[in-house]
Amino acid sequence: MKKRYLLAPGPTPVPEEVALKMAQPMMHHRTPQFSAIFAEAAEDAKYLFQTKQDVLILASTGTGGMEGCVTNLFSPGDKVLVINGGKFGERWGKISETYGLQVVWHNVEWGHGANAKDIEAILSEEKDIKGILVQASETSTTAAHPIEALSKLTRDRDDILLVVDAITGLGVFNLPMDAWGIDALITGSQKALELPPGLALVGLSEKAWKFNAQSKCPRFYFDFKKERKNLADKTSAYTPAVSLVIGLREVLKGIKEEGLESVFKRHDRLARATRAAVEAMGLKRVAPDSPADSATGAFVPDGVDGGKLVKSIRDDFGVTLAGGQDQWKGKVVRIAHLGYIDTFDIIIAISALEMALAKLGAKVEFGKGVAAAQKILMEGYQ
Amino acid sequence: MKKRYLLAPGPTPVPEEVALKMAQPMMHHRTPQFSAIFAEAAEDAKYLFQTKQDVLILASTGTGGMEGCVTNLFSPGDKVLVINGGKFGERWGKISETYGLQVVWHNVEWGHGANAKDIEAILSEEKDIKGILVQASETSTTAAHPIEALSKLTRDRDDILLVVDAITGLGVFNLPMDAWGIDALITGSQKALELPPGLALVGLSEKAWKFNAQSKCPRFYFDFKKERKNLADKTSAYTPAVSLVIGLREVLKGIKEEGLESVFKRHDRLARATRAAVEAMGLKRVAPDSPADSATGAFVPDGVDGGKLVKSIRDDFGVTLAGGQDQWKGKVVRIAHLGYIDTFDIIIAISALEMALAKLGAKVEFGKGVAAAQKILMEGYQ
Repeated sequence: MKKRYLLAPGPTPVPEEVALKMAQPMMHHRTPQFSAIFAEAAEDAKYLFQTKQDVLILASTGTGGMEGCVTNLFSPGDKVLVINGGKFGERWGKISETYGLQVVWHNVEWGHGANAKDIEAILSEEKDIKGILVQASETSTTAAHPIEALSKLTRDRDDILLVVDAITGLGVFNLPMDAWGIDALITGSQKALELPPGLALVGLSEKAWKFNAQSKCPRFYFDFKKERKNLADKTSAYTPAVSLVIGLREVLKGIKEEGLESVFKRHDRLARATRAAVEAMGLKRVAPDSPADSATGAFVPDGVDGGKLVKSIRDDFGVTLAGGQDQWKGKVVRIAHLGYIDTFDIIIAISALEMALAKLGAKVEFGKGVAAAQKILMEGYQ
Repeated sequence: MKKRYLLAPGPTPVPEEVALKMAQPMMHHRTPQFSAIFAEAAEDAKYLFQTKQDVLILASTGTGGMEGCVTNLFSPGDKVLVINGGKFGERWGKISETYGLQVVWHNVEWGHGANAKDIEAILSEEKDIKGILVQASETSTTAAHPIEALSKLTRDRDDILLVVDAITGLGVFNLPMDAWGIDALITGSQKALELPPGLALVGLSEKAWKFNAQSKCPRFYFDFKKERKNLADKTSAYTPAVSLVIGLREVLKGIKEEGLESVFKRHDRLARATRAAVEAMGLKRVAPDSPADSATGAFVPDGVDGGKLVKSIRDDFGVTLAGGQDQWKGKVVRIAHLGYIDTFDIIIAISALEMALAKLGAKVEFGKGVAAAQKILMEGYQ
């Protein structure tokens, strides 16, 4: 027997009660019974998004929501600024180029957030940029971009949109869509929403809907206008992912009950505890200045193969963390702390990391990382 | 208390064992543990598709698979022949027009299958048609199109593809992809595959892959070439719908164990029983000449409001059937018999139909439809 634990940045663990709710007998999607569930989920999603706008529920993973934002808000030839600080920033650019948009690439060193001053300078230079495409939390590097500061550059202009992939940000830290003036906000089911992958959620501002009316990219499966029209009738344009929507309703109810402020505080506490732990272990964090509260990444010690480390933690100790991607492959370990994650998940992750490092021959003082985490995790019990 | 029964043409009931398998603890998608499941599902899908080709597993509903076939196989300006015999035939045309294809609409009267001779005549007239887009089973009318006959028109030509939406056909009746030379074959999880909605499966012939290499439509989320490359590494391009793929593996195992021939025989028996039952009740079937084995539709008797009938069957008797769509709204009732459906589901549907008709004041001889069904259903016990 090996007990298994999942602390990767998506999919995240699904609460047992929610998994069983989703296992209930299938129901037809064009019934008052399901319409009520769909409408309730869409309504509670507004609380999560901190918006009065409609939140669309799409049967796809988050990348589908990203593609939908590109094809529903812009037209071929439109110039967009892509903030590329990792694998998912790069994805914004690739999607945009696929649909014939003109991409201004703003490359940010991996592990860092963009500097809003730099973006301001670019915008004052290139006045025809119609959108900033950015991640709230760049999952591949565990760094956060300064969404509030960016929103100040766009919210008073009617000719530019701020489009935020918050797939590992929403429900983790504060991203008040309406208050900041975020124009498009995207999340996926398998992150802070504690569900299996298969749903994308997208909120759009009034300004974004105006862009939508002008947009000329082809789209069919991801047609936001059609989805909005169907949402008014408590349904979706095409067959919804019924079981996932049932789960979504449950999870959103839970988030509303806990309250966003408490949700953010919990994630902040877990994040600080994890950061303190890896630092106490003498590891160098990969996003030192602007870490996102969704995951903590650290470089593995010299002489340790990061690939082997992540494999040992998973196969020997039963704990799934994430390694590094692309340029960080083999060099980095990432511990996710978003969604259905609490105190003792962090203790498990840190102690497993200590033990796996020791097994691979690294010098480790057992309990040092755990102790550093405990000190901060105690805040939740005072 | 009201016990509920689902006999609509998708979503269909999910076997309890499969629902519980899907409720198991979430696992990360980039692990050997999940890769093995993904690869096994993809491999067993070949048995279902009766093909040696790769079967792609996409995180979307069936419409996403349809869109993917249009954007991955054709280019703007390409001429395609759309066989439009209902709501889903129409969808082929709408998707094609969205991506700039030139659509030759071949309208077929609702309730009928296309005539292969008519299609042959069109093809000999319009030699630059690059694809026939058709349904194996047009869910909105319960009629089947003659896929084998159509395949004879395309399989020896290298300049035209046969693209088949088999979302309510595959796993219901025989559609041997390789033997007939079907170039693109699509299904969804929530029909014969007995799963919640959220997966599309697509098989492509070698000829289709050649078209893919030439195709110039924009695509990103539905990028078949990228999916094929990832499939070779036992993964998908973007996050897979983990829980649904776990369910898919289970269901495909079951289908392989039962054997396709037996699966088809069961569906054929249930279909004939249902047809005999509605005829014995004096109802006129909506697809008299070419009924699909996935669902049976009948016009409601004069003086009965079909909308009220379907509502009463659902809300008073707890049995979810489907009504008519678009031009048949309020006029038709559809009983689905695909997926996790057997003898006594048909008995339930027919007896509920009899009882609801009686409740709405129609003249009904109780048991007459049921008896007609029983006679045929007995074949399964001899």
